[in-house]
Amino acid sequence: MKDIPVAKPRNAFYAQSGGVTAVINASACGVIEAARKHKDKIGKVYAGRNGIIGALTEDLIDTSKESAKAIAALRFTPAGAFGSCRYKLKGLEQSRAEYERLIEVFKAHNIGYFFYNGGGDSADTCLKVSQLAEKMGYPIQAIHVPKTVDNDLPITDCCPGFGSAAKYVAVSLREASFDVASMAKTSTKVFVLEVMGRHAGWIAAAGGLASDAECEIPIVILFPEIVFDRDKFLAKVDGMVKKFGYCSVVVSEGVKAPDGKFLAETGLIDAFGHSQLGGAAPVVANMIKDGLGCKYHWAVADYLQRAARHVASGTDVEQAYALGKAAVELALKGENAVMPTIVRKSDEPYKWKIGVALLKDVANVEKKMPRSFISRDGFGITPKCRVYLQPLITGEDYPPYKDGLPRYARLKNAAAPRKLTAEFKV
Amino acid sequence: MKDIPVAKPRNAFYAQSGGVTAVINASACGVIEAARKHKDKIGKVYAGRNGIIGALTEDLIDTSKESAKAIAALRFTPAGAFGSCRYKLKGLEQSRAEYERLIEVFKAHNIGYFFYNGGGDSADTCLKVSQLAEKMGYPIQAIHVPKTVDNDLPITDCCPGFGSAAKYVAVSLREASFDVASMAKTSTKVFVLEVMGRHAGWIAAAGGLASDAECEIPIVILFPEIVFDRDKFLAKVDGMVKKFGYCSVVVSEGVKAPDGKFLAETGLIDAFGHSQLGGAAPVVANMIKDGLGCKYHWAVADYLQRAARHVASGTDVEQAYALGKAAVELALKGENAVMPTIVRKSDEPYKWKIGVALLKDVANVEKKMPRSFISRDGFGITPKCRVYLQPLITGEDYPPYKDGLPRYARLKNAAAPRKLTAEFKV
Repeated sequence: MKDIPVAKPRNAFYAQSGGVTAVINASACGVIEAARKHKDKIGKVYAGRNGIIGALTEDLIDTSKESAKAIAALRFTPAGAFGSCRYKLKGLEQSRAEYERLIEVFKAHNIGYFFYNGGGDSADTCLKVSQLAEKMGYPIQAIHVPKTVDNDLPITDCCPGFGSAAKYVAVSLREASFDVASMAKTSTKVFVLEVMGRHAGWIAAAGGLASDAECEIPIVILFPEIVFDRDKFLAKVDGMVKKFGYCSVVVSEGVKAPDGKFLAETGLIDAFGHSQLGGAAPVVANMIKDGLGCKYHWAVADYLQRAARHVASGTDVEQAYALGKAAVELALKGENAVMPTIVRKSDEPYKWKIGVALLKDVANVEKKMPRSFISRDGFGITPKCRVYLQPLITGEDYPPYKDGLPRYARLKNAAAPRKLTAEFKV
Repeated sequence: MKDIPVAKPRNAFYAQSGGVTAVINASACGVIEAARKHKDKIGKVYAGRNGIIGALTEDLIDTSKESAKAIAALRFTPAGAFGSCRYKLKGLEQSRAEYERLIEVFKAHNIGYFFYNGGGDSADTCLKVSQLAEKMGYPIQAIHVPKTVDNDLPITDCCPGFGSAAKYVAVSLREASFDVASMAKTSTKVFVLEVMGRHAGWIAAAGGLASDAECEIPIVILFPEIVFDRDKFLAKVDGMVKKFGYCSVVVSEGVKAPDGKFLAETGLIDAFGHSQLGGAAPVVANMIKDGLGCKYHWAVADYLQRAARHVASGTDVEQAYALGKAAVELALKGENAVMPTIVRKSDEPYKWKIGVALLKDVANVEKKMPRSFISRDGFGITPKCRVYLQPLITGEDYPPYKDGLPRYARLKNAAAPRKLTAEFKV
């Protein structure tokens, strides 16, 4: 790794990738605060404006221009403070120009550390960057910082962002269920909430937490892992309404009909004959109306669930920060092509520590819900699932408020002076 | 009012009516706690199970069976703890049997105070009950306790339930706007949030608070008070996206197209040719896709916005409680056919006191947004509107949590023994 002579200390590059979360900035905070404690080894932390695109276009944000207070405020600020992107680097062979450009930019800014904060696709990009060292003779250490509300990364016990989305869904569903229970006598009997999770039902499962021993609520969950069966579903809801007088339904956006199509895409057309993407919740609500004749209400949480920093999980915030900090510590130890992970030490009391995974074992592997976490009938969560999920939503970590609103950080995001003359089109 | 000899102290009847809110139970708490302080004048407080239906069917909940702690917990519990209903009593002439039944039940349980917690329709019911005294010779004092997320009651400066829904919308929209700003470079550029308000745009207006001097956010609001103009709307959004790179849209469920139809009902049909109620947000989102070609996301908050006690407004909780307490104090002063109100004494610092309105001036009057609260182009709020709304969302009042979830109260809701033999069908 020492082919190219480099000035010490070397700088770091940090970027946010893919869908953002309520706590991805807490990881950024962990990375930057940890780096600032080791100025002998890590010079500046440059953030990519809009993720890896910032590296390719040499649009680097100089985070040293931000005050300690501004960086600390990232801990309680949702979404991506530096901008994120959906941009997947292909293999070295197909995208040689992109990798050469990355090296050129990294070299110009003496970047020796690459911290990439994202999900499964991003882990793959990070792995490829880590291979630059070997394949293209440029010394760089690439560390992936896990993040995804989908909770579908392997090896790590959970993924930052998930706990807060899960808490949002559990809290919101409990509240809405109290509402529908109040109305059920003469009006709404079924409430349908659509949540994220195109491939894995982790967030939908969190809806099950809304009901517990102290507060029983009839909940029917539709998981993407279980093929949708209209008749079984309606019978289940009907049974709940008959027993409790009302019922709440959680439907994952990824639920598929037996023909393999998403429920949300079951052929809605508008008055002009154009096809319309309607969401799974209204489709399910319509079935309930047609099949059971119940009054219903439906909600689609969409971005609200992943941005809801106001009701973030304390555990999630702490882990997001710890993983950002751990990434820097791994870099300082000389590691490359790795990702810090959450290792669960015990369920009750909940204890965890930081572990390490090799990126080659993480990239492009998707962790679905185990079947043992889904009840036999396919409509609920098992006690085992509850034991897993419970600690992830525990703890409150409120942002500061002023005039009734959270005071989230907005950084200056000053660009570092460019050193290259060539433009690069992405 | 003294035609009928009655035992002292006389009992009270309390009922929740119409759509519930995050703070209607805080009003219940205010009523019951105040009544408990005057046991010499008010005996038991009976709550109607599922609102007025509980009175008609003699299904009365004996709240004296609840501990002081349980009643105190109502202050932080959303929805209707005794059940609500959508059931409107007609005039005395049309529904004589119902009114006679009410008197029979009230007489059997020595009820001399009628506290009705609801919106405009309920104020009308309350007014009619107050007229029982005169028209049917039964002595009762009827006091209305205002409640509606729609904020459309006249005379009172604001309505309990609205401030919390408004805070939910402002906080959620700020968070989602941070999210879409992060994604806008390569993905979602427009986020659409549908909120409640079938006739009045108060909740939609609250979305405008998400943007302020310290945190500017491009927001386009669609009010039910303004007839929807597709071309003007798309031009407005396009301008915002060009200037800021992204845009958030708040659409009230009550927005109507020029033909007078709700946007949500613009003729969606499913694959089988059945009409489908789709919500206004997906309709608007689809227009943005077709007209501007932008990537979009949309959410429908539905019950989540009115049940969100976890992010309730401190002002709202305080006022809801104070109005419940004031209703009891008005009763003790011998008042009938009135409603306690919020009187704004000053904007900054925000000061308010309790006033009184005559029910005849409240019933069936709907307060829409003044045109002076909506910006000239029809897509935003004015500084005057901001001055009005700001204090209503101020203050945080968090419920207690355990294991990551709010511990909302569930009462025993024990039925008082029946005294009548006749059944009554509602």
